[in-house]
Amino acid sequence: MRQVVLRRRPIGLVAIEDVEVVTSELPELADGEALVRTDLVGIDAAARTWLDDQPGYLPPVQIGETVRAATVGQIVATRCDAYEVGDVVTTLGGFAEYSVSHDDLFTTVIGRVADGTADIDREALLAVFGSTGATAYFGMHDIGRPQPGETVVVSAAAGATGSIAGQLAKAAGARVVGIAGSAEKCAVVVDEFGFDACIDYRTDDLRAALREHCPDRVDVYFDNVGGPILDAVLGRLAMHARVVLCGVISSYVSGEHPGPSNYVKLLAMRASMQGFNTLDNWDRYDEANAELRRLYDRGQLRFRSHVFEGLDLSVDALNALFEGTNIGKTFLRP
Amino acid sequence: MRQVVLRRRPIGLVAIEDVEVVTSELPELADGEALVRTDLVGIDAAARTWLDDQPGYLPPVQIGETVRAATVGQIVATRCDAYEVGDVVTTLGGFAEYSVSHDDLFTTVIGRVADGTADIDREALLAVFGSTGATAYFGMHDIGRPQPGETVVVSAAAGATGSIAGQLAKAAGARVVGIAGSAEKCAVVVDEFGFDACIDYRTDDLRAALREHCPDRVDVYFDNVGGPILDAVLGRLAMHARVVLCGVISSYVSGEHPGPSNYVKLLAMRASMQGFNTLDNWDRYDEANAELRRLYDRGQLRFRSHVFEGLDLSVDALNALFEGTNIGKTFLRP
Repeated sequence: MRQVVLRRRPIGLVAIEDVEVVTSELPELADGEALVRTDLVGIDAAARTWLDDQPGYLPPVQIGETVRAATVGQIVATRCDAYEVGDVVTTLGGFAEYSVSHDDLFTTVIGRVADGTADIDREALLAVFGSTGATAYFGMHDIGRPQPGETVVVSAAAGATGSIAGQLAKAAGARVVGIAGSAEKCAVVVDEFGFDACIDYRTDDLRAALREHCPDRVDVYFDNVGGPILDAVLGRLAMHARVVLCGVISSYVSGEHPGPSNYVKLLAMRASMQGFNTLDNWDRYDEANAELRRLYDRGQLRFRSHVFEGLDLSVDALNALFEGTNIGKTFLRP
Repeated sequence: MRQVVLRRRPIGLVAIEDVEVVTSELPELADGEALVRTDLVGIDAAARTWLDDQPGYLPPVQIGETVRAATVGQIVATRCDAYEVGDVVTTLGGFAEYSVSHDDLFTTVIGRVADGTADIDREALLAVFGSTGATAYFGMHDIGRPQPGETVVVSAAAGATGSIAGQLAKAAGARVVGIAGSAEKCAVVVDEFGFDACIDYRTDDLRAALREHCPDRVDVYFDNVGGPILDAVLGRLAMHARVVLCGVISSYVSGEHPGPSNYVKLLAMRASMQGFNTLDNWDRYDEANAELRRLYDRGQLRFRSHVFEGLDLSVDALNALFEGTNIGKTFLRP
């Protein structure tokens, strides 16, 4: 089997020399283990943060270990009662053709051959029903709480999480304005994801555009980026606004977090800014997936995929999020 | 009657030339008005902000108008059914020997001659039961929500609001650490206000002191100052911490709000930062005052006064908060 292992901790973007594609024997299964064939690797910002030597909600990937990432795959051998051969699972299989799963909260059975549910759209699984969709759901449902007629702004709106978050707010009856980094992305955000408007922060005057597209100010801001964009939206908050801190993609690579001086608007506007982590809500994934499924089946949740083919493109896939080159959910097929 | 009127909008600290003490006739009362003799003017940061030409929860003081401030006084003449001669009231009488009150939410009857409640400690009224105490109560009760055993940090701990906020947290069973700007202030914070510890931010290494005095990190931070102190405490937050944004005294005068780069800790710690305004809770003043009264009568709420004598010292009184020269609640006796 082929897999990508960490050779050196990246500084900023991942360099070719930081990882290596190695070939090894398939692992022998111990009791309680199952072998998963990886069908699709989902790339998100967490995968990059796991390469840093920083404590987080999961330990850092160690030098020599497989680069960790969320995956969807199929059980091909099992010595674990929780899984049958043929089960389709989401797991943290990483950048590898195969991985070993246990009966733990990181592996979830999504479909079974026996009941005909194994023939599932792998991309939708990771783009809508995996931790990406759950993140959008928990942030918007628990913290943002958009009401009909309110104005919701979402940054990185063409991205995997932002696009779902905005569609959830739209389904809740809010007016939804995206922020994205190109005219092409903005077109997708409006035409495919159904946002009411989208601001191109690279070419538009962000503050002027926020005034134009949010005449009643901003009730909910779902922030994926931090930095100057967060600062600009804080300056446009409405009374009792809620800011959902979902990520700081602007600083994952640079390591710098310029503080938003407009945080003082939280005071004037009696507003709140709150961080959250999807893993805290693991026991509520069924709730999240039920709502995501309901909207998806009614055509109210759409997604876009960008698939890198082959483990040799792992570095490109990992960097794509931070280079802002892709639209929608980024995948790699090993 | 003598009163202090605004002649020019101050930039930064108030200058002698910005205001003028003028003498005028006592006003003729119209129907629905009552004349209040000012016994004591309470100075808080809001009084300074009202001199700026910025929209807020009250309109700016106009050039030529009396400098606005919370006061306690006694009704000396009335054509308003809500008030009797002799009533002790809190109102927004400003820097003046007399003012006119109406039957509105800015004037509250605290004591009456008829029932023997007019002989009230004026200083306690403004220091504990006025908007100062209510601000501490709403911020701590609604947003901070300290639990027994939690660690609470309060900045401007020797100040009017901070000292009450910390004592409320202490009464709730929390470990309370103050931050103040001199050894003398820190001594008062610990010895008189009963905080468990107090950090002198002018001489101590703030981050090291926070590590020392908050070994279990910070569950609640009641922020009166913003700026670098806010940033340092954000860096020491515990999981699910609550940051109460009560004021940004560090920037009222400078007009600058350096953003706290440690806002990203809100994300890692699933923490929240929330602004509030006491006036939003005007209909809950009875609730606040009942709790403040309960603790005050049990000796669990103490205050310190600093009284400026005479309207000629109005500029000194207004600047005292921002120069950090005084301890406790600042008053002026006209």
